[in-house]
Amino acid sequence: MTFQTALAEAAGRVQACLATELQGYGNEPVIAAMRYAVTGGKGLRGLLVMESARLHDVPESQSVWAAAAVEAVHAYSLVHDDLPAMDDDDLRRGQPTVHVRWDEATAILAGDALQTLAFDLLAREGCAPDPARRVALIATLAEAAGARGMVLGQAQDIAAETAAAPLTLAQITELQANKTGALIRWSAEAGARLAGADPAPLSAYATALGLAFQIADDILDVEGDAETAGKRLRKDEDAGKATFVSLLGLDGAKARAAALVEEAEEALSPFGATAGTLRAAARFVIAREK
Amino acid sequence: MTFQTALAEAAGRVQACLATELQGYGNEPVIAAMRYAVTGGKGLRGLLVMESARLHDVPESQSVWAAAAVEAVHAYSLVHDDLPAMDDDDLRRGQPTVHVRWDEATAILAGDALQTLAFDLLAREGCAPDPARRVALIATLAEAAGARGMVLGQAQDIAAETAAAPLTLAQITELQANKTGALIRWSAEAGARLAGADPAPLSAYATALGLAFQIADDILDVEGDAETAGKRLRKDEDAGKATFVSLLGLDGAKARAAALVEEAEEALSPFGATAGTLRAAARFVIAREK
Repeated sequence: MTFQTALAEAAGRVQACLATELQGYGNEPVIAAMRYAVTGGKGLRGLLVMESARLHDVPESQSVWAAAAVEAVHAYSLVHDDLPAMDDDDLRRGQPTVHVRWDEATAILAGDALQTLAFDLLAREGCAPDPARRVALIATLAEAAGARGMVLGQAQDIAAETAAAPLTLAQITELQANKTGALIRWSAEAGARLAGADPAPLSAYATALGLAFQIADDILDVEGDAETAGKRLRKDEDAGKATFVSLLGLDGAKARAAALVEEAEEALSPFGATAGTLRAAARFVIAREK
Repeated sequence: MTFQTALAEAAGRVQACLATELQGYGNEPVIAAMRYAVTGGKGLRGLLVMESARLHDVPESQSVWAAAAVEAVHAYSLVHDDLPAMDDDDLRRGQPTVHVRWDEATAILAGDALQTLAFDLLAREGCAPDPARRVALIATLAEAAGARGMVLGQAQDIAAETAAAPLTLAQITELQANKTGALIRWSAEAGARLAGADPAPLSAYATALGLAFQIADDILDVEGDAETAGKRLRKDEDAGKATFVSLLGLDGAKARAAALVEEAEEALSPFGATAGTLRAAARFVIAREK
């Protein structure tokens, strides 16, 4: 099975879980907007949860809940990030963004409710029979998503737009570790937490992967095709923002991303062949076109 | 001790808990905005948590976490509700709203992170040593706050503004049971959940209290003084929206609120004198001036 097939299959399972869940909700626009927002993503974070769970012999019937939770958080962050007061984007995954398709109020509320849904899903018995493991997932997701993780990174990103000087490499690295890295780390460590195992062996993988992902995003922003990516590109350049590409050069950024992918693969050696899909995920994040 | 003193003391403890918590965060504007948003509220929901906990012999050192969590959710909902795309309010608790004091992006992010913080607080061991009880609080808060509770109510409220016909009494009652009732019910039932007890005896109290609260809000919107209330009033009338006052008349609404308070007090009879503050809370919601 190719990595693309594995990714599509995992995304299909996560989206089916979310769709079934949202069937129990009403038919208000805010709920239609939630359904729309969780549809059509790559599903990388969900795959990381399910693959790290598989490494620890946690069945998919359990890990799909945590995978759905992190994809709900990711979807909420995109809906809010696309708002006019934030990045002001009209296009996402090749489709109109939520506030364009509906309106800003619906986008704010749909994002809010998607975040709530994530914690709701992690609290389910199906996620982990032992409530202590569910609590561990909830506590760590809250840390990764909140004002010491993803939201802090988004705020730092906004502050960078009006900063007197462009950010340094150290500052960009910290910003991205918060903005996208924290959720990716949570995803790759979730399998260990579901199993009550030590997440440390997966941390090195997850940290390298998260940084490689963001460097690849910056490369994609410069080299990518907006139609293939399904979103607006060259935003950072237009905004005069420092990126890994502006700081390292295009070749330097590519070399750094490749080194990080090697580092990520290396970190998986204790897991042997079982970690094949996670290794492929690391190679995928720097090869993707969207 | 008067009820006002009890309320102020509980609010002080909850705000101290939140302030200590946020000290561990950075100094970015988004974190300053979070601090600002959790300051100065009445703290009714937090008091309901702490008093229902006291009825079940749960110490304040525990219940303050759940009280802080629900006040964080309440604060997030106000920050987002005040945004230009939602209610577009400049004044809250007598102070400029978060998007006026900072900007819209900071208000969106601060609200997002306050919601995350709520689940973070409920996941703490200090909240309840038994993780199963923490999970029960998290699951029920997610239900009360999300797209089957508070957010659904907010969406229904927005939809009502452009509806062809004003809402009926049944529709307003359902809307308000979601918009403000769900969080008030969660608060009043939280003490039982912290103790691993059946929350049903508190449900009748909480449901009557939640509805009385909203009828009182509609009365305040008509009769109140904006300076005392610390927010813009006569919004519903200006928007031509149906309210309990427009549907029942001012005297009818007052009579209904008073009957609900009696009902709420009656529901507390199994708890005897220990429930004195919860009884006073019911009387307070229809007598308050803000």
